[in-house]
Amino acid sequence: MKVGVIGATGYAGQQLLWFLNNHKETEVSFLVSHSYPDKTYSSIYKNYRDFIKSKCISMQNMYKYLSSVDIVFIALPHGKSMNIAKDLLLKGIKVVDLGADFRLKNYKIYEDWYGLNHEGKELLKNTVYGLPELNRNLIKNASLIANPGCYPTASILAIAPLLKNNLIQNSSIIIDAKSGVSGAGRSLNTSSLFCECNESVKAYKVGKHRHTPEIEQELSNINNENVNVLFTPHLIPMNRGILATCYGKLSKSISLDNIQEIYEEFYSNDYFVRVSEDIPETKWVKGSNFCDIGIRFDKRTGNIIVVSAIDNLIKGAAGQAVQNMNIMCGFDEYEGLNFPSMIP
Amino acid sequence: MKVGVIGATGYAGQQLLWFLNNHKETEVSFLVSHSYPDKTYSSIYKNYRDFIKSKCISMQNMYKYLSSVDIVFIALPHGKSMNIAKDLLLKGIKVVDLGADFRLKNYKIYEDWYGLNHEGKELLKNTVYGLPELNRNLIKNASLIANPGCYPTASILAIAPLLKNNLIQNSSIIIDAKSGVSGAGRSLNTSSLFCECNESVKAYKVGKHRHTPEIEQELSNINNENVNVLFTPHLIPMNRGILATCYGKLSKSISLDNIQEIYEEFYSNDYFVRVSEDIPETKWVKGSNFCDIGIRFDKRTGNIIVVSAIDNLIKGAAGQAVQNMNIMCGFDEYEGLNFPSMIP
Amino acid sequence: MKVGVIGATGYAGQQLLWFLNNHKETEVSFLVSHSYPDKTYSSIYKNYRDFIKSKCISMQNMYKYLSSVDIVFIALPHGKSMNIAKDLLLKGIKVVDLGADFRLKNYKIYEDWYGLNHEGKELLKNTVYGLPELNRNLIKNASLIANPGCYPTASILAIAPLLKNNLIQNSSIIIDAKSGVSGAGRSLNTSSLFCECNESVKAYKVGKHRHTPEIEQELSNINNENVNVLFTPHLIPMNRGILATCYGKLSKSISLDNIQEIYEEFYSNDYFVRVSEDIPETKWVKGSNFCDIGIRFDKRTGNIIVVSAIDNLIKGAAGQAVQNMNIMCGFDEYEGLNFPSMIP
Amino acid sequence: MKVGVIGATGYAGQQLLWFLNNHKETEVSFLVSHSYPDKTYSSIYKNYRDFIKSKCISMQNMYKYLSSVDIVFIALPHGKSMNIAKDLLLKGIKVVDLGADFRLKNYKIYEDWYGLNHEGKELLKNTVYGLPELNRNLIKNASLIANPGCYPTASILAIAPLLKNNLIQNSSIIIDAKSGVSGAGRSLNTSSLFCECNESVKAYKVGKHRHTPEIEQELSNINNENVNVLFTPHLIPMNRGILATCYGKLSKSISLDNIQEIYEEFYSNDYFVRVSEDIPETKWVKGSNFCDIGIRFDKRTGNIIVVSAIDNLIKGAAGQAVQNMNIMCGFDEYEGLNFPSMIP
Repeated sequence: MKVGVIGATGYAGQQLLWFLNNHKETEVSFLVSHSYPDKTYSSIYKNYRDFIKSKCISMQNMYKYLSSVDIVFIALPHGKSMNIAKDLLLKGIKVVDLGADFRLKNYKIYEDWYGLNHEGKELLKNTVYGLPELNRNLIKNASLIANPGCYPTASILAIAPLLKNNLIQNSSIIIDAKSGVSGAGRSLNTSSLFCECNESVKAYKVGKHRHTPEIEQELSNINNENVNVLFTPHLIPMNRGILATCYGKLSKSISLDNIQEIYEEFYSNDYFVRVSEDIPETKWVKGSNFCDIGIRFDKRTGNIIVVSAIDNLIKGAAGQAVQNMNIMCGFDEYEGLNFPSMIP
Repeated sequence: MKVGVIGATGYAGQQLLWFLNNHKETEVSFLVSHSYPDKTYSSIYKNYRDFIKSKCISMQNMYKYLSSVDIVFIALPHGKSMNIAKDLLLKGIKVVDLGADFRLKNYKIYEDWYGLNHEGKELLKNTVYGLPELNRNLIKNASLIANPGCYPTASILAIAPLLKNNLIQNSSIIIDAKSGVSGAGRSLNTSSLFCECNESVKAYKVGKHRHTPEIEQELSNINNENVNVLFTPHLIPMNRGILATCYGKLSKSISLDNIQEIYEEFYSNDYFVRVSEDIPETKWVKGSNFCDIGIRFDKRTGNIIVVSAIDNLIKGAAGQAVQNMNIMCGFDEYEGLNFPSMIP
Repeated sequence: MKVGVIGATGYAGQQLLWFLNNHKETEVSFLVSHSYPDKTYSSIYKNYRDFIKSKCISMQNMYKYLSSVDIVFIALPHGKSMNIAKDLLLKGIKVVDLGADFRLKNYKIYEDWYGLNHEGKELLKNTVYGLPELNRNLIKNASLIANPGCYPTASILAIAPLLKNNLIQNSSIIIDAKSGVSGAGRSLNTSSLFCECNESVKAYKVGKHRHTPEIEQELSNINNENVNVLFTPHLIPMNRGILATCYGKLSKSISLDNIQEIYEEFYSNDYFVRVSEDIPETKWVKGSNFCDIGIRFDKRTGNIIVVSAIDNLIKGAAGQAVQNMNIMCGFDEYEGLNFPSMIP
Repeated sequence: MKVGVIGATGYAGQQLLWFLNNHKETEVSFLVSHSYPDKTYSSIYKNYRDFIKSKCISMQNMYKYLSSVDIVFIALPHGKSMNIAKDLLLKGIKVVDLGADFRLKNYKIYEDWYGLNHEGKELLKNTVYGLPELNRNLIKNASLIANPGCYPTASILAIAPLLKNNLIQNSSIIIDAKSGVSGAGRSLNTSSLFCECNESVKAYKVGKHRHTPEIEQELSNINNENVNVLFTPHLIPMNRGILATCYGKLSKSISLDNIQEIYEEFYSNDYFVRVSEDIPETKWVKGSNFCDIGIRFDKRTGNIIVVSAIDNLIKGAAGQAVQNMNIMCGFDEYEGLNFPSMIP
């Protein structure tokens, strides 16, 4: 299958190329980069020397390559995908958008949180939110996948079984998430400099992060009720990984063993979710497409604590995008993704 | 003033020596180290070359030096301070214990959480919990100070003004704390190896960490009600620093501005607590005795979020111990401590 | 092919399992661990959950599994492999030893540098030093491979083409190497603790590191003259990677372009060595089996500078061991190893 | 004494303010920042909250404050200090320039390496290269100090005693230096992003770094012969610190003990240089003004190895600038600088 990548030189884009390069069924037709048009890809990311020989192209030049591709991945900042996706779909090309533009079903919520007009409202109805563990069947027949955000992937997978089984009080959900710095992307910000991040931890965008409505949308769908969550992201001095520590008040009496069973049952057909009796650490999933989940119950306060760990660039971005492609295109769901974290 | 240090070669002990070395009013009389008796201190911590010329001594040899000291700091693992403190107090020596043995007023709670018999119950009544911002007046006249744990310092300072003013529902408090690796001390554990900590984040001892009852004791004192908290510590790949992200449901309607004023008022006489309109980052307090606090209110869920940042080895251990000594001995409270974080 | 691994729970051993797990031609028959006999492998390295289901066995129990294996990898500290290798070879099992015991052809040099009696002298003659780029043909028919050390791999690959072409003065070679902390292994040493390594760099074992004679042996073989080198290792606060900055005085007049050509020619059949016009960084090889090499000439001082970068656990240990197995067993040399570094 | 700082918001500038804030004899009159004019200093560097209350001013506005200051520190990129220094000197204000503009006595060498016209040639004659250990007496009477670069400070201090005593062959000197990322400053470059630096090490500007002629100038002065060195800087994933590993061929037979004595004698009056029998690590000097030096001799190759460690922002920049001010102004040389590294 012929694949195009738009936004190939961001961190998520280049992670995607790592997977596509190893994938049995795909061949990359073009790489679009706004920052490095006409530059050899491996001169920017030198790890790809001898693996990727092509040059990046500009957005304008992309259009002449479209006839040759079956699917395009878009890894651009929010607001940039809407019109491109329209063009691609009109040509019958499948699209997996790693950005935020199609994740929110209600365009007003998008406009409210992102401060932009939505220029692709008409596509929202048929867009599928590409979290395979919740929407696998819809993904199979989708043309446009909104690939979930990194924080929402970790958060939703942690909490979904609780809501599905009405085990927690909806109003009590708090998600305290910790992310490595690659989540901030490769653009130039003082706050992403080595010396600003190293040897420090901070909370940011407290109560205001744009992944909040995305988490709420999907959790509300599970529950058929309106779910509001408090989501607090933190920046951790490491390259990769998200740990989401999720809290909620139990709504009925149930043993931890039973909750554990409910989780195992919920994810029994989901290869990439590993429910464990241990509390996860990001190192065990770093560099892989797995989401590890561990659960505890605190009798003293009546809280259930669910901790999930993913690699933000893989299960939280490029790996999940490939997983979605695999499902859409009828490949093995774990083709190209089936290996464990490499540690240390 | 003549000072002795027991446990001088752990991370907290050596941090204490950094301060004592710079302090105008103190002279160090002896350094006890279980691991390095008879070794020159600066051969272990080479930064102290030309600053500390003495050798470490063993616990047994300490007793002959006691007649010459006014105050002794104990920086030993829990369970090791009880009998030593008794001996020292009998000789009329003031004691600041950086360990956990005297922090819990109720010895049964100690025995329950620490799994040890308490061999110094009779001292508990007159021990002062050495958090100057809450107990300054008691500290002035104390002979035995239980220096607070690192997590409790960050947590209690973050939450105290809310409880004092009955602003949150007691049953709703969740503390999600993130600590650098020095909090685990210098003992040899696989989990403290560089390659095990670096590039990873984890939660640990979820709902079971021994700092929980200490936080609850002090918060209950403020409120005169029983306060239970859910406390979840996390390990972050950095040397120093604790960030405590504290959550609670507001119990009455009040604006964020008013809450901010309440915090500023509460800490108006506390030089080392800086209430800010910004959300703190540990780098701004690293290497200093400050506790930075920032507050947010999330209308959507009714939660107040208070984030506090300290240096775990300073305001969370050795700096606070010196602050306590300063108060006990009538020195300027910030003697030896009055400088900002050195960054980056 | 059936494979056994001895020393499976050290960092090199577990890295080896990562590759064996992905390798098309191998099946792992047993895992020997001195530290964790009878423990499930994935309870120690949780990344391998759902990938490796077997338990570790003890050394004693290994013998009953030997009839079923074709090749055994030994990843033990020096001094531990000699007798084991003898036993295995007697049973007709091929051996790749990742430790130091068989690397030095002259057992006296071994005994001098390692302070041990060599108990397998009789094997040394037929042992092959497993650096495929130099010894590929010998490896094909070997039964016992001494897998090179991490520093020697980086150093020898950097310098070999210069010596082969008599381009540098033998007495002028200096190797200043920088390694990540995983090179120190997973054993418990204060100097490997996170807080001891992080935010610091040091030189260690200056002029005394045991990899020195190994480098000298192989360089002398290339040159048919006795080559002494000054080798200075440094510890860098990162998990993985070695950068070797190698210096030598040019012995004849030649342009940098010509030197570059000589390197490209030298490695023209070596897939895993990438000679570049750029100076390498360890991130471009981290997590892969590649060795990147860059060359500069400093007219002002007459020095040639060759910088090489490898992943110490892969090309410097487990990856090279698999490469050796591939060659010995007639598989594709890059089977299981053919992917680029995953960054960041 | 009244002090002004130009370039107050770079890493070196803010480190300088840390020292000036603690210094008994100085009061800061103005802070010039190109990036943040009119912003409160502590809104940029929040560690200085309650310590520095003033706002930054622009370069233009500085001139009206000049009448009130005795000394000005300039911490600007090269090329920016020449005209400012002239203005200040004309007004009788002493100047310590932390940049490169006045370090090279021969303006042609400056113009060659920096690619700029030197607009302050006439000042060069009376400028003093502010390395107190070599030029203390000249510094006492200087009006314009060229504060040494970070790499030259570490390199020159390591090598000076060898050259002074004619112990090494001039043509054999190689300096392999390793620096933390703060050396690259706070400006926005992709190569300074956290994810680009973390978990990687690289050599850069091999044989071309602009600190080379500065090192050579000072070493040549010591020796009264032309000394060329090969200088190779490396970037290390840590905030602070430089380790310089210096190599040279011994020119006469001498024992290591004697060399050690020569070093101790050479630096016997230099408080901030600590010659040790150990090989230094940057952590023992991080956060302090010390330079630690350790020496080894490698009989096998005839090389002497001298390793020096400094904090690049302190002894390599702001601390040394304060040391120079102390000497120029007749204060205690270590006023404000007399404390050890804070670890870990």
